[in-house]
Amino acid sequence: MFKKILIANRGEIALRVIRTAREMGVKTVVVYSTADEKSLPVLLADESVCVGPPASNQSYLNIPNILSAALMTGAEAIHPGYGFMAENPDFAEMCREHGIQFIGPTPESMRALGSKAGGREIAALSKVPVVPGTGVLDDTDAALLAAKQIGYPVLLKASAGGGGRGQKVIRTQDELAKGFAQAQEEARLYFGDPAIIMEKFLEEFRHVEVQVMGDGQGHVIHVGERDCSIQRRNQKLIEEAPSTLPESLRQEILAAGVRLARHVNYAGAGTLEFILDREGNYYFMEMNTRIQVEHCVSEMISGLDLVRMQIEIAAGQGLSLQQEDVILKGHAIECRINAEDPDKDFRPAAGKIDDVHFAGGPGVRVDTHTYSGYVIPPHYDSLIGKLIVWHDSRDKAIARMKRALEETVIQGPKTTIPLYVKIMDNPFYKRGAVMTNFLKTRMEAPGA
Amino acid sequence: MFKKILIANRGEIALRVIRTAREMGVKTVVVYSTADEKSLPVLLADESVCVGPPASNQSYLNIPNILSAALMTGAEAIHPGYGFMAENPDFAEMCREHGIQFIGPTPESMRALGSKAGGREIAALSKVPVVPGTGVLDDTDAALLAAKQIGYPVLLKASAGGGGRGQKVIRTQDELAKGFAQAQEEARLYFGDPAIIMEKFLEEFRHVEVQVMGDGQGHVIHVGERDCSIQRRNQKLIEEAPSTLPESLRQEILAAGVRLARHVNYAGAGTLEFILDREGNYYFMEMNTRIQVEHCVSEMISGLDLVRMQIEIAAGQGLSLQQEDVILKGHAIECRINAEDPDKDFRPAAGKIDDVHFAGGPGVRVDTHTYSGYVIPPHYDSLIGKLIVWHDSRDKAIARMKRALEETVIQGPKTTIPLYVKIMDNPFYKRGAVMTNFLKTRMEAPGA
Repeated sequence: MFKKILIANRGEIALRVIRTAREMGVKTVVVYSTADEKSLPVLLADESVCVGPPASNQSYLNIPNILSAALMTGAEAIHPGYGFMAENPDFAEMCREHGIQFIGPTPESMRALGSKAGGREIAALSKVPVVPGTGVLDDTDAALLAAKQIGYPVLLKASAGGGGRGQKVIRTQDELAKGFAQAQEEARLYFGDPAIIMEKFLEEFRHVEVQVMGDGQGHVIHVGERDCSIQRRNQKLIEEAPSTLPESLRQEILAAGVRLARHVNYAGAGTLEFILDREGNYYFMEMNTRIQVEHCVSEMISGLDLVRMQIEIAAGQGLSLQQEDVILKGHAIECRINAEDPDKDFRPAAGKIDDVHFAGGPGVRVDTHTYSGYVIPPHYDSLIGKLIVWHDSRDKAIARMKRALEETVIQGPKTTIPLYVKIMDNPFYKRGAVMTNFLKTRMEAPGA
Repeated sequence: MFKKILIANRGEIALRVIRTAREMGVKTVVVYSTADEKSLPVLLADESVCVGPPASNQSYLNIPNILSAALMTGAEAIHPGYGFMAENPDFAEMCREHGIQFIGPTPESMRALGSKAGGREIAALSKVPVVPGTGVLDDTDAALLAAKQIGYPVLLKASAGGGGRGQKVIRTQDELAKGFAQAQEEARLYFGDPAIIMEKFLEEFRHVEVQVMGDGQGHVIHVGERDCSIQRRNQKLIEEAPSTLPESLRQEILAAGVRLARHVNYAGAGTLEFILDREGNYYFMEMNTRIQVEHCVSEMISGLDLVRMQIEIAAGQGLSLQQEDVILKGHAIECRINAEDPDKDFRPAAGKIDDVHFAGGPGVRVDTHTYSGYVIPPHYDSLIGKLIVWHDSRDKAIARMKRALEETVIQGPKTTIPLYVKIMDNPFYKRGAVMTNFLKTRMEAPGA
């Protein structure tokens, strides 16, 4: 096992990795920007190294500084968390070149799976259905032709994007003619790669994803699936496990996820994202080659520590679990507590948290890097904590989440908590009839 | 199901009951003394009623005021928590007389089991071994005769005592001759009943207890056992589930616990306390006819909500679980966070908590009624919170507990946290070689 690892991330996920590392007896180094000097991961890690000013591209994306920090502190491995460098194959490759183990898949499988176009190809090879769509489109003409075949509305996606970023809905030929070049330009700007693919746009769908763990030698298991349909601007807000899909469909999707990951000899933790239409057709969207924000709900129903498994696999200890050892029990829900004003289109609300008191008691897990007096820096995402609950049924888990939300006090910034309380009371949510347009269509709907 | 219940308790257990009641959609009334006006249960209950000044006998033991509060607010049932009125059959009877459901066993079984003498008798009838000892002793002469037969050292116990209170070790005939009448007098003073029994005193033993749930009609299941051997002055500090006993012995003790509870048609949650000597002989000590502080570890390994089951049974919904439905998984440990100075013989440390930040993350449960700015009143026990962890093995649970203790910050009063950190590192504790004299003999022992 590693003696020391470096965590190339911030916030709750940096703390998440520190927690498991401490339990494993592995020392931790955390890198931080000057904006995060007083954050909990920096206070709790065994060592910390400042790698730059607040701007991400000068700190959390600053590869030379991060690698130097690892070499200087003698860290044998780097955990990238999610976001930032987590899905950057060049970074993973540079780690390898410097003799540092990247805690994640190989750069090769990241490259193969990391682009939307590559993911679609691998899905086809492993007989996993994909939404009608294209590979990388060269220019506007090619896009117009493809859209004619697929039928409007279509979705333009930055092939290198992820987590809902870099997507644009196109409803008419005119919009596409005007917007394609701009989409390429934006993709180049945000993701360093102008490649754009096109997919059939489903007006409403359900987002279900499969958590897999692989040993890099063909052994892949799943840790159930998660429903992450409650979103705003393609960003997940509430996730749960298991989904409310019929059992046969669940099993089919789980098998598809494992098949695809096995096809690429996947190593470490990964997530296969699927969308489902009202008719129960499911389509593979993309694979996230990293731990996800919402991994906690899978941990709650399985009793597994997915971050520990990531570290063990990266350290060459393999994956001793067989599929039949993964026993899923009960129901877990996660609410992402964002410092945002849900009444003002989720406008970020940085600033000082005067007082914070999270819920406790049975079946409640809290993952937060905040504390009373913590100042939320305006430079990063607005996630300030995750409230996760478990109970033996979905109905009871919803009741427990409502109880936990109502117990939680965050004084200072506006948060998404009041919205989540309403959702827990929403009859559509309670029935599990949830699509990604839930917030737009189901909050004020008749019967809500 | 009840529409509204009253909670006749304070602190973390009052909050514990409120949490489950909220999840069940049951309204709560909490009673409080003027010292607890700003405590979390009072802030979180649907209604609260002040029943008296700080002194327990004028507030939390004030039966007329508590019953009036229940009648006035229309509460249909009373949850007594632990301590105070929880094992007072007279109170349970008065509840019945006023048409209020007592959430616990019947006054009759409380009477039968609540006294040490009665418990020993029932144990004998249900073929459960007890420590060599006596029934109620009339006077010093009877005590001297009994001690001669049993052999010194012996233990004098107030028959109406509980939880380690009202016990005295007697090592010589002389001590007994001088001390017996005084023990009677103290028992009368503290428990309202001078009855004293005598038992063989074991110099060191292990404390293992069986959690049972009964429906009052002969159906009794167990929810595993707990090892609660780490104690100071006969008060538990650290509890865990399951115990580290050999499997056959575990099963034997579990069966003995169920047999005894079934013998009295037990209703609700109860705990059968056993002591074990080095040779693996086990003896029934007493039954606690209530929920216990340490019930959380049983909840963590079973996924059950024991307070919910208590309320369901009291509401006449019975106990639908069969023994084979209770699936115990992994290992849980609880540390009682007391506001005490472990370096000064656990002297209580009341006063203001300037800042409190409990641990979070995977497998961590926190039950506390405190918050930043909370003032610990000096009138009650020193328990300010419980830190409970779960992991898939005992070794990992110990590592997780250490991690969680080190994350927890309580500014203001001294607490038992630093002691627990040392215990988690103690090689005797790690091996599970734990007897009730652990703190005296194993903290500075060679190899520790």
